[in-house]
Amino acid sequence: MLKCSIITIGDELLIGQVVDTNSAWMARQLNSYGLPVRKRVAVGDSRDEIRKALDEEGRDSDFILITGGLGPTADDITKPLLCEYFGGKLKVDADSLANVKYLFEEVFRRPLTDRNLKQAEVPDNCKVIINSRGTAPGMVFEKEGKTFISMPGVPHEMQGMMTKDVIPLMLSKGNNHHIVHKTLVSFGIGESMLADHISDFENSLPPNIKLAYLPNYGMVRLRLTGTGNDQPRLVTEVENLALELSEHIKEWLISNEDEGMENIIYRLLKTNELTLSTAESCTGGYISHLITAIAGSSAVFKGGVVSYSNDLKRDILEVKEETLRSFGAVSEETVSEMLHGIRKQSGTDYGLAVSGVMGPGGGSEDKPVGTVWIGVINKKDEKHVRKFQFRFDRQRNIHMTAINALNLLRSVIVEDIKTD
Amino acid sequence: MLKCSIITIGDELLIGQVVDTNSAWMARQLNSYGLPVRKRVAVGDSRDEIRKALDEEGRDSDFILITGGLGPTADDITKPLLCEYFGGKLKVDADSLANVKYLFEEVFRRPLTDRNLKQAEVPDNCKVIINSRGTAPGMVFEKEGKTFISMPGVPHEMQGMMTKDVIPLMLSKGNNHHIVHKTLVSFGIGESMLADHISDFENSLPPNIKLAYLPNYGMVRLRLTGTGNDQPRLVTEVENLALELSEHIKEWLISNEDEGMENIIYRLLKTNELTLSTAESCTGGYISHLITAIAGSSAVFKGGVVSYSNDLKRDILEVKEETLRSFGAVSEETVSEMLHGIRKQSGTDYGLAVSGVMGPGGGSEDKPVGTVWIGVINKKDEKHVRKFQFRFDRQRNIHMTAINALNLLRSVIVEDIKTD
Repeated sequence: MLKCSIITIGDELLIGQVVDTNSAWMARQLNSYGLPVRKRVAVGDSRDEIRKALDEEGRDSDFILITGGLGPTADDITKPLLCEYFGGKLKVDADSLANVKYLFEEVFRRPLTDRNLKQAEVPDNCKVIINSRGTAPGMVFEKEGKTFISMPGVPHEMQGMMTKDVIPLMLSKGNNHHIVHKTLVSFGIGESMLADHISDFENSLPPNIKLAYLPNYGMVRLRLTGTGNDQPRLVTEVENLALELSEHIKEWLISNEDEGMENIIYRLLKTNELTLSTAESCTGGYISHLITAIAGSSAVFKGGVVSYSNDLKRDILEVKEETLRSFGAVSEETVSEMLHGIRKQSGTDYGLAVSGVMGPGGGSEDKPVGTVWIGVINKKDEKHVRKFQFRFDRQRNIHMTAINALNLLRSVIVEDIKTD
Repeated sequence: MLKCSIITIGDELLIGQVVDTNSAWMARQLNSYGLPVRKRVAVGDSRDEIRKALDEEGRDSDFILITGGLGPTADDITKPLLCEYFGGKLKVDADSLANVKYLFEEVFRRPLTDRNLKQAEVPDNCKVIINSRGTAPGMVFEKEGKTFISMPGVPHEMQGMMTKDVIPLMLSKGNNHHIVHKTLVSFGIGESMLADHISDFENSLPPNIKLAYLPNYGMVRLRLTGTGNDQPRLVTEVENLALELSEHIKEWLISNEDEGMENIIYRLLKTNELTLSTAESCTGGYISHLITAIAGSSAVFKGGVVSYSNDLKRDILEVKEETLRSFGAVSEETVSEMLHGIRKQSGTDYGLAVSGVMGPGGGSEDKPVGTVWIGVINKKDEKHVRKFQFRFDRQRNIHMTAINALNLLRSVIVEDIKTD
């Protein structure tokens, strides 16, 4: 079983100025090919720390994937350090030079500077990976049977390289150990309750299968992971256990795939040829952003109104002035009128509306921060409007409102399909 | 100078199922208090790997902060392992038990299970940190002059603990070494060109000051970091250098603070008592989401229309059928009419409109994926409409469109204020 480590380099990772999404992406890819990651490490732009990380990870892993520190500026020290660490000398690589020139002349259409040209210099003891999306080449070093692969930190450049070159290279080194994951998604039950509910199932799992609980904003993802050498048998084993598990949790099960709530909605609408529009107050466009982030969503999503102010609720969604005055913007009555307004404006099969107090300001004794009304309307003009009470901070409240709104929509659509 | 390591625990971090936002948050906090993070490590739910990480980080750092693996379910193995590693025995902690009972009875209002009660068990050789936002307590262990602090992985629980207990504890251990950061934000110039432009400035920096380039979606943040023991002097030194740097890059400088484009827009609008509305096609609500994520944004943002379909462009924004037919949805003419439509509907000082092809589908020879029209209208009904050509994937195109739209708005507002 070949083991991998990921080392990400950059002071910005250590002062928290950026979130390290690269290593999550890399880990996901590696896993899907049966290349388990045993450790992820982030170090700063420090020669000592980078050296120490190379020593430590090189000792325990077979593949050491490195990103970052390859840019053209003075704070990027990785390339000379790698050159020194593996005992090479910097020289200009002809292919990399041609690539840099091509990118500046044909793609970026910007003048080429000496700094950019320097990016074509690589250690003479590495195998070069051409970067089709940027100027910094990738580098592969071999040392004492271990493979070190250095890539740029720009996400889409690294991703292009991983897909096209790095993963094929790793797979070619032979890998008989397989990992199979299967994730089910539940909604509306806490981690502990769920664990109690399925403890018999969990305790009876064979030793090569692990169960993990991944709670996130009202959802708990249950992930079964199987390891073994016979891949087809492993797939069947995990699939069968997932089927058994889905029976145990059917009351809360919302998907048999590892997907977000917005994907579930997209599939439901798409499969049943249904359309949706939204009227968002407190979520400020976040719900429509979640849906439209999905490629192809224009087939099911017609658009929406972000009626952040009362004026827009009244002028576009035709919420009555009287309703706003008597009950306020955060009320069953207002959300109910928003539903009729958005369906009238858009003519979609379903309409979704939310109005609430996200905080930190705007709360009252009656309607404290976290008070939210969520409503769904279908093409028979039947409405489902519910009150929710969330807690804690603005960002979390926006997210919880969006997820619960989409879940209410999901349950209404599922019910409508059953009764049709 | 006291050094910190962060260890995050959980298989989900190694298979890339979740992005590790916790350690970025922790690193930011620690840095702001002059507690530099030398390394971040993520390991799976594996006894061997956790032990090895504790050994390695305990050797080189003074504080070792650990998150994750403390939940109530069987995949959480951290607590028994820490107990064993530091040679303690599990016993029920009275304060933690009272907290668990209080949370279930008063806050969550759910039945309390044996699993939840077990969360009140802690090793008898640690100092307990009460978790005011959840059931898993924090634990502080001392070993050979090093301090190990274990916290739950749920972000808002960990954050509450860090702020209230962990950072004060760490500061109380004495810390004379100070770190001061100052970040400037530039837009519209690449990293290499910028580096060439300021190479004299960069080369003349004193040895205790470092400059880092942090490129992100068309923006490059320039971060000056100073280290030293005399804090007031250090602050002045960094401030003066930042002032000098801002002169060098004034052509591209968009902020003297480390903030996102949406914050810049919010401040500009708020300070000048201006209001905004949006008409988003291809960004699907992402622009209004960015703005409304800011607390207090309702003072400047009135709302918008997510006119994802042509129907909504026509029906709500009054884009002419003829315009859509002759020029298409992705055109100067359509965006121009969207601008008039959104200002008419909302009555705001400024209107922002975007329409484009985000991909992967929908492109044509004329309008390939990444073609975007962005427009801004002011209260004199003066319009600025520009064409952009982005590249690569959908997610990146949505983000690039939003950032460039906000930047166009920024430059129009700045210009309007000057001429007023």
